[in-house]
Amino acid sequence: MPTSALPHELQAFLAQPNPSVIATLTPEGEPHSAATWYLWDGGRVLVNMAATRKRLEHMRRDPHVSLTVLDRDVWYRQLTVRGRVTEIAGDDGLEGIDRLARHYTGESYARREDPRVNAWIEVESWYGWAGGAPWTGSR
Amino acid sequence: MPTSALPHELQAFLAQPNPSVIATLTPEGEPHSAATWYLWDGGRVLVNMAATRKRLEHMRRDPHVSLTVLDRDVWYRQLTVRGRVTEIAGDDGLEGIDRLARHYTGESYARREDPRVNAWIEVESWYGWAGGAPWTGSR
Repeated sequence: MPTSALPHELQAFLAQPNPSVIATLTPEGEPHSAATWYLWDGGRVLVNMAATRKRLEHMRRDPHVSLTVLDRDVWYRQLTVRGRVTEIAGDDGLEGIDRLARHYTGESYARREDPRVNAWIEVESWYGWAGGAPWTGSR
Repeated sequence: MPTSALPHELQAFLAQPNPSVIATLTPEGEPHSAATWYLWDGGRVLVNMAATRKRLEHMRRDPHVSLTVLDRDVWYRQLTVRGRVTEIAGDDGLEGIDRLARHYTGESYARREDPRVNAWIEVESWYGWAGGAPWTGSR
């Protein structure tokens, strides 16, 4: 997997509201996965979750994560970024989840009772795949 | 996560050609994820990959995997199954990848040069999520 900076084309892809799945590590050292919204946030990946989510515990214990992003339209195109959660912070005013919700749905987040948390991922390596060949993207 | 058998409704969901992402464990003990086709194959999950894929090495070393399946149409619905790869076998006649390709595309698999491998996953636990609440499915 390349560890260079993400090519422009792949950054542009990440900036779209694509479906994605995040993998974390359980306390038993097993892989765990869950669908998630994400936001390409100035060179880092922002994810947000209810404060009770298992994957938040996982990230606090072991910051390594892997995020696979699927193309909304082109089923055979995917981009996986791997790296570490380098910042975790309470989403006190729900600004984080509102940014994500607007990005994906065009509206603010509906459920406003439960405490939520932001986590930012620093990308350390990545690979793209498109229809049987690596997708390295134009720079 | 429930460890009971998958309710009928969730099995019916798994039987559709949904987008999915599989998480495995790297030799360094980090999570790794990749988009994958899968097939609900009589109580086990079949995945198939080129024999050179990193995730095949991962499965041979540590059989724990997590598969998150997204709904093709309903963006907020997901089902994650976790378990172990209990069987790995060469896909010598490409029957495995052809089953998957027909399931997803209606046609046999186009690229027939590269050796491929089948892996079957026994589901040990699962969780479904649908629009802000657990999706437990009807039995």
